[in-house]
Amino acid sequence: MQYPEPIAKLIDSYMKLPGIGQKTATRLAFYTLGMEDDDVKGFADSLLAVKKDLHYCHICGNITEDEPCEICRDQSRDQSQIIVVEHSRDIMAMENMNSYHGLYHVLHGTISPAKGTGPMDINIPALLKRLKSNNKQVKEVIVATNASVDGETTAQYLAKLIKPAGIKVTRLAHGLSAGADIDYTDAMTLTKAVQGRTEL
Amino acid sequence: MQYPEPIAKLIDSYMKLPGIGQKTATRLAFYTLGMEDDDVKGFADSLLAVKKDLHYCHICGNITEDEPCEICRDQSRDQSQIIVVEHSRDIMAMENMNSYHGLYHVLHGTISPAKGTGPMDINIPALLKRLKSNNKQVKEVIVATNASVDGETTAQYLAKLIKPAGIKVTRLAHGLSAGADIDYTDAMTLTKAVQGRTEL
Repeated sequence: MQYPEPIAKLIDSYMKLPGIGQKTATRLAFYTLGMEDDDVKGFADSLLAVKKDLHYCHICGNITEDEPCEICRDQSRDQSQIIVVEHSRDIMAMENMNSYHGLYHVLHGTISPAKGTGPMDINIPALLKRLKSNNKQVKEVIVATNASVDGETTAQYLAKLIKPAGIKVTRLAHGLSAGADIDYTDAMTLTKAVQGRTEL
Repeated sequence: MQYPEPIAKLIDSYMKLPGIGQKTATRLAFYTLGMEDDDVKGFADSLLAVKKDLHYCHICGNITEDEPCEICRDQSRDQSQIIVVEHSRDIMAMENMNSYHGLYHVLHGTISPAKGTGPMDINIPALLKRLKSNNKQVKEVIVATNASVDGETTAQYLAKLIKPAGIKVTRLAHGLSAGADIDYTDAMTLTKAVQGRTEL
């Protein structure tokens, strides 16, 4: 026995999403069946809209409806700093600090020898072109890749590439999270926190 | 700072699904952005199709494209037995046994005093009508509600209602799962297994 075709197709679609297996997809598909017509129509419309109306800013790689994106367009922002992030969604976290007013660059991934992703496979060429073409306006590139092996590799690679051009390359501090308990902190984080200790 | 409107809307849509909060919805929305155009279009189409092409069989309450559903239409099935389940998806589990060839009835829920769901709020009236109108063809109603308090309440209620009509009402055995270890089995399950012990 098989599910009616419309529900089988919807289960397949849900299973294409990350972290959703057959059981969850089936549960979601049956749940969809019981949702309000308007909600399902809105869901379908918004799926089509993200593919149709959004693209990557040709300057920084952030997702945007307009070209260039809101941040690249904003001349009141500090043009001398660029924070380099792995994903567009990381920009939201940075903006939530409410204390950084420079520019961004989205790599859409990291250099990863394990996954076979090289520097040319992510948005690094566009960053180099950007740094060359802006008449030395950029004084500092702040690498904000994740605190993972690949994030670290990418940061080191960018530093080697960009520093010779006379641009300062920095990276985020590694250490204790806000409110962290010392005795619940893992050894690697503690090691980084001790190495990066600052004078009082 | 806010996400571009198309992505914000898609995040809202994902959040309407059960068990998906803001973080997961955001991750799924950004993932959708990177999916193949055809896959996203197929996803949107299948969402609309389940609402447009599927409905509940007027006899048994199972989801179906046709009316009545495949199972109700199939005269080669044993017309004397009806398995009563909570949800359409439970039918799939029953059919996977490959050993039951009777009919089904879907309640779309359970009686639940805690949630304020009474017998009239679920698909019980249609079951009673069905039993009355089929000239005593049905000899046995097998209640296959979940092994929960509400499932139990519903089973007891159905038995009280249907037995006076001279129809046998049974329910699934409760006991050890296939391959279960006694020492990992909870006390309630063991109790049921002992109570339901069969002679060798």
